[in-house]
Amino acid sequence: MKIAVVAPSCTLKAEAAEQVSALAASRADCELVIHPQCFLSDGHFAGSDGERLSALREVMADESVDAIWFARGGYGSNRIAEAALADISVPGMRKVYLGYSDAGFLLAGLHKAGCEVAHGPMPQDVLREGGEAAVVRSLDWLLSRDRSGVEPSLTYPAQAYNLTVLSSLLGTAVEPDLAGYELLVEEVSEHHYRIDRLMFHITGSANVRNVVELRLGNCSDIPANEPVWGSDEEAIVRDWCQRAGINYGGRAAIGHDAGNRVVPFGRNPRRGPL
Amino acid sequence: MKIAVVAPSCTLKAEAAEQVSALAASRADCELVIHPQCFLSDGHFAGSDGERLSALREVMADESVDAIWFARGGYGSNRIAEAALADISVPGMRKVYLGYSDAGFLLAGLHKAGCEVAHGPMPQDVLREGGEAAVVRSLDWLLSRDRSGVEPSLTYPAQAYNLTVLSSLLGTAVEPDLAGYELLVEEVSEHHYRIDRLMFHITGSANVRNVVELRLGNCSDIPANEPVWGSDEEAIVRDWCQRAGINYGGRAAIGHDAGNRVVPFGRNPRRGPL
Repeated sequence: MKIAVVAPSCTLKAEAAEQVSALAASRADCELVIHPQCFLSDGHFAGSDGERLSALREVMADESVDAIWFARGGYGSNRIAEAALADISVPGMRKVYLGYSDAGFLLAGLHKAGCEVAHGPMPQDVLREGGEAAVVRSLDWLLSRDRSGVEPSLTYPAQAYNLTVLSSLLGTAVEPDLAGYELLVEEVSEHHYRIDRLMFHITGSANVRNVVELRLGNCSDIPANEPVWGSDEEAIVRDWCQRAGINYGGRAAIGHDAGNRVVPFGRNPRRGPL
Repeated sequence: MKIAVVAPSCTLKAEAAEQVSALAASRADCELVIHPQCFLSDGHFAGSDGERLSALREVMADESVDAIWFARGGYGSNRIAEAALADISVPGMRKVYLGYSDAGFLLAGLHKAGCEVAHGPMPQDVLREGGEAAVVRSLDWLLSRDRSGVEPSLTYPAQAYNLTVLSSLLGTAVEPDLAGYELLVEEVSEHHYRIDRLMFHITGSANVRNVVELRLGNCSDIPANEPVWGSDEEAIVRDWCQRAGINYGGRAAIGHDAGNRVVPFGRNPRRGPL
């Protein structure tokens, strides 16, 4: 299987690329190609919008590529998502796409278009403590659909997003259709009051209210609140789910950490026979 | 004129209350009543959701009150907005409401319900350097509809919001109808990449795309970006307006600062003859 790595958000660190390449090289079944665009730098981003879009389009159109693995998160994939999806080709429809965090903007649009997508660890995650196991989880799933690294409590067709990314998707051209899905959310580096505001926003959405259930992943590196917030992120999520009539399904093993599991998105019913 | 001050978000500082009361007392035409709820404290908020909602409902229903002035921003008015608006009374419809920042959640819903509302400085702003002039601007407008403190370049019926608040309103029960309005936005303490993401979100909305024009207020206290962002907030707003086909109308004199001007919201066509 040939896996192409591109960076629609921020620049991939060279040491992450080296370590993940070594992991892939040790496997007989894996050809990993890290696109040189991953190492570009233009202000906040891994190259200009044009450069990031061009690299993504190139690997999407490449018939020899089986899977596209997003290099890392950060910020910026939303700036090219609509354009990348406007003219999606048959080869682009035939691949599987994997990432999380900021890459959720692309996962949402690709899933909506009918592609196979999954939330899961990305190459840059190898630099976390315990990050090799995280990255291997994604590789195992990509290479053989091995489910040992899949989030263990999935019950319904699922979708998984960073909470801020999901909030930013609502109402846009790449908003996912969530009706009938199990929705998993996670967050990083946001205050409790911001998590509360995000939950107000997403649970106010008619689309989100159509999920079968909502489950909460890890919320890591929460900055201290002044004054003290007084409850925790699970209480916040329970509260807003209750207000909105959404079934709260408990915790989920996803997040910005080495324990982050793979969540294959449930098949979009509009997905064709490609 | 009787003006009631309530705090649907965070606790009002006692020294702000004293200074604003003194300003009001020096005017023959002004009876300012600061509701004791403004000084409550419950975690992040000026009292529990129930206490904040109860105080708001009380002054909304009070026929002797002509105007409701929100004490300050922070976070939390969204938690009571839908409930406060669910059973709005005739006396509540006959008042004018003034505030900004987090109070935008209420302004949006009140305007949607047909009430007269305005963006403008709040009692807590008196503590800013030059804050007395800011607060007097709101008092002058409330007491006599004096336009000397009104944003000087308003051309169309207007609405004004904090960018994060507007983003959080989209898709909820209190989302304002923006079609045909001049939309003014401002922000505080958000990184450039977050302003970019917020602009992606709001300009992706069909509702926001129906504005006559969008104008940018002050974006203050922007944290340093790592790596350097490479442009400024006006370039970000121009870019997203252009992508979305929204007319960018230039800068506006609103923001989290002492120069913040009053923006009376344009009359909601659905507003009755009350």
